[in-house]
Amino acid sequence: MSNFKVVATEGKARAGVLKTAHGEVQTPVFMPVGTQGTVKALDPEDLRNCGTQIILGNTYHLYLRPGNKLIKKMGGLHQFMGWEGPILTDSGGFQAFSLGAMIEHGVKKIGRSENNRDESLARGPLVSKITEEGVQFVSHLDGSKHLLTPEKSMEIQLDLGSDICLVLDELLSPLHGPEYVKQSLERTHRWEIRSEEYFRKGVRTEGERGIGPQLFGILQGVFDKEVRVQEARWVTGQDFAGISIGGSFGTEADWAAAKAIDQTISWVVPLLPVSLPRHALGIGEVRDLFACIERGIDMFDCVAPMRRARNGSLYIGPKNGGKVSNKYTLSISRAEFTADPRPVDPGCSCYTCQNFSKAYLRHLYLAKELLYYRLATIHNVFFIVNLVKSIREAIIDHQFELLKKKWV
Amino acid sequence: MSNFKVVATEGKARAGVLKTAHGEVQTPVFMPVGTQGTVKALDPEDLRNCGTQIILGNTYHLYLRPGNKLIKKMGGLHQFMGWEGPILTDSGGFQAFSLGAMIEHGVKKIGRSENNRDESLARGPLVSKITEEGVQFVSHLDGSKHLLTPEKSMEIQLDLGSDICLVLDELLSPLHGPEYVKQSLERTHRWEIRSEEYFRKGVRTEGERGIGPQLFGILQGVFDKEVRVQEARWVTGQDFAGISIGGSFGTEADWAAAKAIDQTISWVVPLLPVSLPRHALGIGEVRDLFACIERGIDMFDCVAPMRRARNGSLYIGPKNGGKVSNKYTLSISRAEFTADPRPVDPGCSCYTCQNFSKAYLRHLYLAKELLYYRLATIHNVFFIVNLVKSIREAIIDHQFELLKKKWV
Repeated sequence: MSNFKVVATEGKARAGVLKTAHGEVQTPVFMPVGTQGTVKALDPEDLRNCGTQIILGNTYHLYLRPGNKLIKKMGGLHQFMGWEGPILTDSGGFQAFSLGAMIEHGVKKIGRSENNRDESLARGPLVSKITEEGVQFVSHLDGSKHLLTPEKSMEIQLDLGSDICLVLDELLSPLHGPEYVKQSLERTHRWEIRSEEYFRKGVRTEGERGIGPQLFGILQGVFDKEVRVQEARWVTGQDFAGISIGGSFGTEADWAAAKAIDQTISWVVPLLPVSLPRHALGIGEVRDLFACIERGIDMFDCVAPMRRARNGSLYIGPKNGGKVSNKYTLSISRAEFTADPRPVDPGCSCYTCQNFSKAYLRHLYLAKELLYYRLATIHNVFFIVNLVKSIREAIIDHQFELLKKKWV
Repeated sequence: MSNFKVVATEGKARAGVLKTAHGEVQTPVFMPVGTQGTVKALDPEDLRNCGTQIILGNTYHLYLRPGNKLIKKMGGLHQFMGWEGPILTDSGGFQAFSLGAMIEHGVKKIGRSENNRDESLARGPLVSKITEEGVQFVSHLDGSKHLLTPEKSMEIQLDLGSDICLVLDELLSPLHGPEYVKQSLERTHRWEIRSEEYFRKGVRTEGERGIGPQLFGILQGVFDKEVRVQEARWVTGQDFAGISIGGSFGTEADWAAAKAIDQTISWVVPLLPVSLPRHALGIGEVRDLFACIERGIDMFDCVAPMRRARNGSLYIGPKNGGKVSNKYTLSISRAEFTADPRPVDPGCSCYTCQNFSKAYLRHLYLAKELLYYRLATIHNVFFIVNLVKSIREAIIDHQFELLKKKWV
């Protein structure tokens, strides 16, 4: 009954196919993040031209603006934004908990919640609070108060017409002590079960339509083998269509964070059922993609490619100087590109590299021209989406190790 | 020897073909303005898909950033920005004179130059100054001092590889008194002649290449029949490839300004040679397009369609409520569009109207999403470019009066 099928493996790395209500997804896959009903600066045609198979929508943002009820009325998120492919939505919990305090996903900073009373971290009033019921938070748009429960998160995601919904969980951080971690994980289990119950009821109400929306469970935790193993066992015991791995991951490719990612994935993947797709939440660095795929991960999402593009940081492959230490990027503002007629990456076949020079992109970037943001985002999305696609092809051809050597 | 040919007329309205080094332009034509080497938010493919035949580039902006010498080194503006169609460049004089004081083209505000010593208008230090030599100005980017002479303007435009260059002139305003107007026009004549001399030398130096760059003269003036008639006679006596009409035009469609435009065009057009294309500088309101084409104008440029798009103001045709009093626009932010599944203008076949609803555009606009600016600009550029195209077809079919009645 699984919607997922492994079609090839090389070591623990695997190539698969995930069926959704909006078509099949070839895995491993990178999912660009479309926070507010658009992957910033791109339209659906751009996304398709970049090879995008599936995008991620943010429940928190769409709930607040324009609202899940409006999107439902407009025929769902696919129709509203004109994207016909699959959509995965997050639970909204991470943003609800973090946006007030503006923490980054994972390890870098930590928020101002009542659960985190380290005075040195507290700045300004508390804006979010976790209770058994859910996450109380204040809108970053207008200061209005909201309560995100597991049931509410499911209701929003079903209103959006998501193909893959995520259960509500609490994101843990390295700053949480063992006692809090234990309590939090137990609460997350209860939230995941409540999410699933509401989801099944909601989907049943909507009737049978072939493949409907699917629900992924979340494997939470901190950088602790015992905790991660226990959580892997727990989530495997539930009846989810896939498993998203969250918690203390680094979003930057410094080696401490990278090692923590590799280690965590190595601990948990052998305990997960082969038949379910595995999603690493918020992972998207080139190095991490190779490391996680090698350890059996199938799905990725990350805002980094899009955000970097807007900040002038564009991907380059190893033949053009891309390496771990420069995060496989160049800075388009550099003076050396002033009169450079070559594309960002001569090996890249994206629309931007096929049509525009570094000199032109540098000019647009320095002039803050709107066109820059689209052309840069096209390049970065194409680059990462197609890197993951080439990894998939390598796995099928048993060339993964070879490809990895060329890159990392 | 003229590059321009009239192919049909209806009354004074005419349809023509203008040959340039980068292809033919069917007139009447609207030229979107690409200030900094891009029509804001659009790339060349978007422009082509909007039906754009020719764009306008701004000499002042490109001279300051990225610099005409760099663009020349990169193969010219066409190659630098990836636009293969014709480009008309202005002289840079208007921006050099106005940007420090941020005046609008024409009649609304007036700058802080030493030639304009009305104390009530002076705010802050003087940043531009007109002498016999040219326009002294201070860069709006870095405060550096520059001198734009007729020769310098020509050099820049030839470096850019412009298909149609404009002579340097001084823009007059209704606030200039008759004595200043007389002196200014005499100086502008000298500047136009100096421009032409440098242009011919520069083009000759570059050698014969079939149709090369062309030079348009400028018919300056204020709202005064005697002045305009005298200027029409002067410019007709020169050897220009086309005539751009500048001076005191309103950029907004209020009726006083509109009447001044109509009147001015009516005064001068009968005195201009039939064989030369006539360009109305900075005109682009729907009403004005009809009024000017009816009176014999062939070419238009205006920033309004692009700027309006970015400000949430989108064009609608008369069947959808567009009229002179609303400037043929709707405001996409209006609450009534919150759940409106229809396109901005159901009669429009632009990419935006074919794919996206008012509800979605409103959401993107309110969320300040980058995608909004592109989709909105596509609509407004397509709308105006194709309105002018449909006027051309109407002239050929002797249906101009009929079309005008439907619109104005």
